[in-house]
Amino acid sequence: MKIAIAQLNVLIGDFDGNVQKMLNSVEEAKQKGADLICFSELATCGYPPRDFLEFEDFIELAEKAIERLAEAADGIAIVVGSPSKNPVIEGKDLFNSAYFLADGQVQQVQHKALLPTYDVFDEYRYFEPASEFKVVEYKGKKIALTICEDIWNIGNENPLYTICPMDELHPQGPDFILNLSASPFSYQQAETRIHVVRSNVERYGIPMFYVNHAGAQTELIFDGGSLVVAPNGTVVDELPYFEECLRVYDLDVVTEGTQSKELPKNKMQLIHDALVLGVKDYFGKLGFKKAILGLSGGIDSAVTAVIASRALGKENVRVVLMPSQFSSDHSVNDARELAENLGVQYDIIPIQSVFEAYSTLLQPQFEGLPFNIAEENLQARSRGMILMAMSNKFGHIVLNTSNKSEAAVGYGTLYGDMCGGLSVIGDVYKTEVFELARYMNKDGEVIPVNTITKPPSAELRPNQKDSDSLPEYDILDQILYQYIEKRQGPQDIIEMGFEEAIVKRALRLVNINEFKRHQTAPTLRVSPKAFGMGRRMPIVGKYLS
Amino acid sequence: MKIAIAQLNVLIGDFDGNVQKMLNSVEEAKQKGADLICFSELATCGYPPRDFLEFEDFIELAEKAIERLAEAADGIAIVVGSPSKNPVIEGKDLFNSAYFLADGQVQQVQHKALLPTYDVFDEYRYFEPASEFKVVEYKGKKIALTICEDIWNIGNENPLYTICPMDELHPQGPDFILNLSASPFSYQQAETRIHVVRSNVERYGIPMFYVNHAGAQTELIFDGGSLVVAPNGTVVDELPYFEECLRVYDLDVVTEGTQSKELPKNKMQLIHDALVLGVKDYFGKLGFKKAILGLSGGIDSAVTAVIASRALGKENVRVVLMPSQFSSDHSVNDARELAENLGVQYDIIPIQSVFEAYSTLLQPQFEGLPFNIAEENLQARSRGMILMAMSNKFGHIVLNTSNKSEAAVGYGTLYGDMCGGLSVIGDVYKTEVFELARYMNKDGEVIPVNTITKPPSAELRPNQKDSDSLPEYDILDQILYQYIEKRQGPQDIIEMGFEEAIVKRALRLVNINEFKRHQTAPTLRVSPKAFGMGRRMPIVGKYLS
Repeated sequence: MKIAIAQLNVLIGDFDGNVQKMLNSVEEAKQKGADLICFSELATCGYPPRDFLEFEDFIELAEKAIERLAEAADGIAIVVGSPSKNPVIEGKDLFNSAYFLADGQVQQVQHKALLPTYDVFDEYRYFEPASEFKVVEYKGKKIALTICEDIWNIGNENPLYTICPMDELHPQGPDFILNLSASPFSYQQAETRIHVVRSNVERYGIPMFYVNHAGAQTELIFDGGSLVVAPNGTVVDELPYFEECLRVYDLDVVTEGTQSKELPKNKMQLIHDALVLGVKDYFGKLGFKKAILGLSGGIDSAVTAVIASRALGKENVRVVLMPSQFSSDHSVNDARELAENLGVQYDIIPIQSVFEAYSTLLQPQFEGLPFNIAEENLQARSRGMILMAMSNKFGHIVLNTSNKSEAAVGYGTLYGDMCGGLSVIGDVYKTEVFELARYMNKDGEVIPVNTITKPPSAELRPNQKDSDSLPEYDILDQILYQYIEKRQGPQDIIEMGFEEAIVKRALRLVNINEFKRHQTAPTLRVSPKAFGMGRRMPIVGKYLS
Repeated sequence: MKIAIAQLNVLIGDFDGNVQKMLNSVEEAKQKGADLICFSELATCGYPPRDFLEFEDFIELAEKAIERLAEAADGIAIVVGSPSKNPVIEGKDLFNSAYFLADGQVQQVQHKALLPTYDVFDEYRYFEPASEFKVVEYKGKKIALTICEDIWNIGNENPLYTICPMDELHPQGPDFILNLSASPFSYQQAETRIHVVRSNVERYGIPMFYVNHAGAQTELIFDGGSLVVAPNGTVVDELPYFEECLRVYDLDVVTEGTQSKELPKNKMQLIHDALVLGVKDYFGKLGFKKAILGLSGGIDSAVTAVIASRALGKENVRVVLMPSQFSSDHSVNDARELAENLGVQYDIIPIQSVFEAYSTLLQPQFEGLPFNIAEENLQARSRGMILMAMSNKFGHIVLNTSNKSEAAVGYGTLYGDMCGGLSVIGDVYKTEVFELARYMNKDGEVIPVNTITKPPSAELRPNQKDSDSLPEYDILDQILYQYIEKRQGPQDIIEMGFEEAIVKRALRLVNINEFKRHQTAPTLRVSPKAFGMGRRMPIVGKYLS
């Protein structure tokens, strides 16, 4: 039996486009002699469809998509994920299902049993879990259909769940496992997936074809990396990251598992490529081409500009240098040098005149009061307004350049440097931004060395340094990582050897700045715990604050 | 037996403060001769604690709160909601529990079985459902402990669930039901609650004491309105809305059910009082006192200003009139008249000079291009910046004045009129804003009549009217209500008699403006479906867009 797997980049809700993409793949698979082609989880409607699932109209479009695909299942079987209606009144209205289509018809539907409801996942909001498990028989083979999380409770050892779908299917003697996934990227995820798939094949003694999405959906970046793993644990093939791909395998060859093709994994390369795809798809899927961003001469905007020009092409990126009286000479020079290295259009628009216009205008109200955060923020907001005006005039999307450390402690100005349609590096800690910059320079200097080596500064008052207000980033980032990614409490972190006052201050800053993060752009997720939909915190509260 | 119920206004994560509040209530109940006092769901930590629940440290603080309350359960029993750890490895780590405390100890713990995971609720993200149900025996009475949603599957007729906790408890012969709730306000909710409680008492033939929270938690406003209902369905008492209250009842008198004390319900009064509490608690719980907002002379900012001054006191509200060259004379006059009616401080800060500074600055880039949305938004953003600068200088929170119709169709400027820490009327459709204004004027003119009667305009270009860009609000709001609150698809709405082109355009505007709503302030929720945490939509997608 020849099995095709296709990791595609679908668009949420674009049923016509998604079906057309799958029909093209079906055609290609047939030409390559495949008996069966497998797509990923909820491939008809895209993942995550979120509350679109609550619209009857949306579900009917998904049903029509399945009908069209069923018609194409002629001389080939098609396995595809799509929502299906729960005919029983009790329980949620929908299942998250894998359709098995052959001979022009729906032959069988297997629902998902393990519904992730944590971090970025909300599946129990919409779906009823499966309670029945039945292998599909096709051309003399028995196939275990599983959907994403279904294979993540190996031998019932995942404490979150009480059933293990493969333990239910295994007694029916399946020859291989198909897994339809929607597994978003984080920098550890590819390794974790291989571990999980390997544990499954070794436990059940049959091969697995694991099919992921390959494309970004707002903040979630699906990285592809689909897997074909032999019963002996050999990774027979690992599909490329961050791009669409269709490949066909002979089941017998896969079952032998003589050759391994695992891809190398480099954290900075993965993050870099993920962010490039994240920007590319955000723009492409919204129908935009051009990005604009402010270039300060600092490392965050430099890294963001490099990603933007790699994602969109240098001709579609415009940068604006907006010096103030507090900007150092090197800031403008470093920024200009980067723009020239990238070959992107740049404007220099000093903000002093608008800052003075505000100062004059507010003079009656501010008379006699010292320069403070109001004036600092006026500068940041003047810059934000200039970018937004350019964006409105020329049809750019503004890119936000905040990093995760800043977002965490609220070191940024709402409607100022926190503006923009997409936060590109908002899930990358400052210390990782430096690593990313060095990675970008690995084949020659793109980001000026001075940008990487000088001490970080917001330059909103004379001789300001980030370290005036914040702990050094190499300490701060470790504390933030323990609190955010590892969900350690203050005592645990202090016991790791960090200074009590610094820990308490950092955690307090994270908690009291939830109101700022609430109003920021969606953030491309590259870590196991990003700000945004996967981290839901009260804005008003009194905990560690 | 004498039973006290206390609807309190707790603060999320403020264990010390919340416990102290409850200890005061325990003392008061004892003085009034109560045998038992019942608090609401998750009263120790506040509701909703959201991802704070993922912190071991947070759960330990909740456990310590229970210990302190148990010590106080001396001569009185205390029933209180708090998270508890699930000792079984499989399943979620926590239960959402009702603790029964007496004689200085935890006597019994009943977990919640029905875990709402829809709209604003995420309970299955954190909690394992109860599988055991046992009445509590105390002073010769048997008590059925239930938590909020547990009583909402009456006789198993709620299609969301497959079990009915009271059907499990009823055979054990309970004498009455305690229900610990955290039921957020919407304008229909009080009536719905009475219907649900009445259906329960009539089905099981025993009285119920239903205890809600009374206080706002960011966007969710818990409205109190706790209920004491006799087996014959009589509402023996309904506690006041939007305020704390403790009352003591004789079980025998309640069981008789001879007297009804249901409160009158007026939609505009409820919305008005909810918004006042929402603003008051947002400020009070964050430790802020003073609000600032822009007053345009239009109805949205007028209504917002009235709510702010009723919530915070006129001495704590400052309004800013920011006319441009496109502002009509009556705008400034109407705004000034309102400020004078309210007795709040007002500044007049014309934006022309900063607008000109931007125009001059951007002249090299914008040369030869026509006035468009860039210039319109520059005006709105100049106003936003002035408000934010004042806020930063004087310690105000900026109040957002957008209404739900605008938020729905994206008729607002990001970082401009969409700025602010809290959206006060963002869940109130424009047509309802007019009703609210008339309600505010019921005892004499607060909002100038001209503000209510003139056609809505953003005044960002000469002679602009909202109706130039949008359908008339009385049509638009009905379409939006069907799409947002009722989740009807385009065909359903067209079949109701609305014009196809208008329906499609309205739905498209809602969907393509998700990116704007993503970046707005939390919105006080007063309807059954508000923008924000209860409505989760993809930003990038292609559905009705």
